Amino acid sequence: MNPAYAQAKARFARIAALGEAQAMLGWDASAMMPPGGGAARGEQLATLAGLAHELLTAPALTADLAEARAADPWDSANLALMRRAQARALALPTALVEASARANSACEKVWRGAKAAGDFAAVSPFLTEVVRLQRETAEALAAASGLSPYDALMEGYQRGVTAAEVEPVFTAYEAFLREALPQVEERQARAPAALPLPGPFPVAQQRALCRSLSQRMGLDYDHARLDESLHPFCGGTPTDIRITTHYDPADPAKALLGVLHETGHALYERGLPEPWARQPVGEAAGMAAHESQSLIIEMQACRSDSFLRFLGPQLQASFGGPAAPYAPENLGRLWRHVSRGFIRVNADEITYPAHIILRFRLERALIGGDLSVADLPGAWNEGFARLLGVTPPTDAEGCLQDIHWHDGAFGYFPSYTLGAMAAAQLMKAARIALPGLEADLAAGNMAPLVGWLRHNLHGQGNRLGFQDLLRHATGKPLDPGDFTEHLRARYLS
Amino acid sequence: MNPAYAQAKARFARIAALGEAQAMLGWDASAMMPPGGGAARGEQLATLAGLAHELLTAPALTADLAEARAADPWDSANLALMRRAQARALALPTALVEASARANSACEKVWRGAKAAGDFAAVSPFLTEVVRLQRETAEALAAASGLSPYDALMEGYQRGVTAAEVEPVFTAYEAFLREALPQVEERQARAPAALPLPGPFPVAQQRALCRSLSQRMGLDYDHARLDESLHPFCGGTPTDIRITTHYDPADPAKALLGVLHETGHALYERGLPEPWARQPVGEAAGMAAHESQSLIIEMQACRSDSFLRFLGPQLQASFGGPAAPYAPENLGRLWRHVSRGFIRVNADEITYPAHIILRFRLERALIGGDLSVADLPGAWNEGFARLLGVTPPTDAEGCLQDIHWHDGAFGYFPSYTLGAMAAAQLMKAARIALPGLEADLAAGNMAPLVGWLRHNLHGQGNRLGFQDLLRHATGKPLDPGDFTEHLRARYLS
Repeated sequence: MNPAYAQAKARFARIAALGEAQAMLGWDASAMMPPGGGAARGEQLATLAGLAHELLTAPALTADLAEARAADPWDSANLALMRRAQARALALPTALVEASARANSACEKVWRGAKAAGDFAAVSPFLTEVVRLQRETAEALAAASGLSPYDALMEGYQRGVTAAEVEPVFTAYEAFLREALPQVEERQARAPAALPLPGPFPVAQQRALCRSLSQRMGLDYDHARLDESLHPFCGGTPTDIRITTHYDPADPAKALLGVLHETGHALYERGLPEPWARQPVGEAAGMAAHESQSLIIEMQACRSDSFLRFLGPQLQASFGGPAAPYAPENLGRLWRHVSRGFIRVNADEITYPAHIILRFRLERALIGGDLSVADLPGAWNEGFARLLGVTPPTDAEGCLQDIHWHDGAFGYFPSYTLGAMAAAQLMKAARIALPGLEADLAAGNMAPLVGWLRHNLHGQGNRLGFQDLLRHATGKPLDPGDFTEHLRARYLS
Repeated sequence: MNPAYAQAKARFARIAALGEAQAMLGWDASAMMPPGGGAARGEQLATLAGLAHELLTAPALTADLAEARAADPWDSANLALMRRAQARALALPTALVEASARANSACEKVWRGAKAAGDFAAVSPFLTEVVRLQRETAEALAAASGLSPYDALMEGYQRGVTAAEVEPVFTAYEAFLREALPQVEERQARAPAALPLPGPFPVAQQRALCRSLSQRMGLDYDHARLDESLHPFCGGTPTDIRITTHYDPADPAKALLGVLHETGHALYERGLPEPWARQPVGEAAGMAAHESQSLIIEMQACRSDSFLRFLGPQLQASFGGPAAPYAPENLGRLWRHVSRGFIRVNADEITYPAHIILRFRLERALIGGDLSVADLPGAWNEGFARLLGVTPPTDAEGCLQDIHWHDGAFGYFPSYTLGAMAAAQLMKAARIALPGLEADLAAGNMAPLVGWLRHNLHGQGNRLGFQDLLRHATGKPLDPGDFTEHLRARYLS
């Protein structure tokens, strides 16, 4: 191996180990830390982030990267990712990074109160400053990468797909929605009402069921933990995954489907190519790719008719009561209910993309300078009404609902719907490759699907950008027709 | 503030934040981590340790320390500790540090099997290498500090006390033991047999009792957690303490007294001077000082007749059954039983120092080159027989029992007995300062004692070395007479 490349690899392994420490401390802060530990944790994380930035921008690394030569495609991809990571880090002046971190933190704090009070005016000046600094950030990244400013932000979450590619996909989905949503609602209205599951749902039983189902998906608890946190997430590191959930004693579906979702993320991390651990090419391929893996498990596989046939008796064994509510048709009615709600995180898989399309349009306009923060509530409500035909009664149910923008995350939202679409496309390809898949799902046998994902996607690490990864796994770039085909099959056939 | 000193403070704050991250990851590894996370955790901790070492030995810090001027006694102490920390770090060549870490790790691994098999020959060559590198380390530290090699090692655990001061203290204790131990045994033989506590002792009740008693000691769970681990410890950081214990369903005393012990450590960390957080002078004053704080809570306060009067009814309320076993005299017979056992961690407070005296003599001889590792088992058994009149039947109950030496910790053992003696001395001073102390203990009111400790010891941080800290808190340096006076009062009056 070229010595400069070997040295660069060693430097990136150190940066990655710092990132792992940050991941574990982040998990701890959400799942374990007593409230009084918060201030010190902030210092610890800031110190680790500062050191990682110093290592990433070190002149010695620049020199190594200039001399480095890669011998094979994996090394080439790794080296390109190293150079990209350093270029992005060097593109941003320290003063801008620090001003952004301060503005995001200040805005996020004010947002919590503003959301509770439905008071957009309170957060507006803070969000204005966040957006101003995000524009500056986008321009600096654009200048260093040759991408457009918005694409340069998006690249920080998911590389290998541009806003110009996303736009027609979203426009087409809007048309699908206009046509299909009323039909789905009509069919739903004609169907029998869903029977609620008979309670009670003791947390201990919920926990045991979540654990056993995640194991059935393929999660190995020698390399994972399942804990509780206010907002469920998948954290940790590839050999030490930490997933969390939140148990609602009145509704086991929340924790159950949530854990299946996080298990999809976890399986991706566990399936990353071990020989490339702690190298850029050994990481997951981005946020859209990650979301495709949580959604292929939760939405595609586990909410399928086939799997619900398997799941019903498992639920009944855990919680008891008569068989009827556990029938697959009833579980489908309960867990695939479609409605024009205002809150993204509660949305069904048909209306969810509308939430994302709205945010994609608005954040592009904010970053492009075509929309001012002061005009955001009006633009939100107008856009929401155009997409879903209803208007949020308050800003708390409108532009104040999500933390993302108020914490400086612009370019992230498209990942959710790109992931949902990729999940449908991957599922379709898996079904073709695995003719016994439906029977496997009905038997609760996830190994064939997870094995296929491991081979075609997880094991590819971060070698390929979004479109190329889909090409590799399914033979074509993003094809949103697979997603609408899935929706028609599930909701309209 | 002198700018160079201000810069040095900022650098040390960063090093301390890295140390905090290491502390949290260490706690996680013992209390939370799934087994498969071990290898990655090793990488993470090694990376953090390496970065901390780089920051501590950076030429820029050397330059700051050369220019730095302190304005008051706290700053002076802080600056002196900074210089000492850098001098110790610079004294050790990287190759020696790495060779030591490897040798310790290899020896510790072999030791686990050797201890289980009672096979000293298996570990002997590994321990020989560990000792060789410890000698080299001691000589390098000695050359940089002007201390003797063994004192230079001891300084790494507890500064401000020398082997020359420890030696006569231990010799005097040996004489006390020869006289007092047979008397204690004779009295014990004449006393009624201890009644066992009536079980069962459900873990949930043990946990609740441990938690409520630690709160009663003054531990605030907004800044602390209580979890489980194989070997109990106190970890975390001053605003986010993590104590652990191990529940034995057959004996609640283990977890209970263990948690009280760890709570003593925790209160010390919580009581460190907040304005000096993340500075060397704001840390605890060393391992002997720390042990004095765990033992003043566990041994001095909580095993006192007065506190046992309070504790008995608490235990009975938790576990039920007749009153007799919960009487303070019976709890005293159960929890202050003296015996000539072979295992240090099970030893009572009278024979415990004999274990330490033996290790102190042997490790000084090993580091001084007067004893070879091959001769250790013989020297151990001979020394043990001289001190306690009994000979370990196997090396597993002899020189193989503790991890410390096999993990490269030389100079640490004296801290245990220095801490026990300091605890007695501090308790005597507290009793004089707080005339109502016995009544408070009998009422379970710990606030006066903990307040006194906070003011006289915790709040002093690391400003003073061991002897000076005792002088500050009690008006005199270590006076082992206070310890033997305590033992005579408890066991012979």
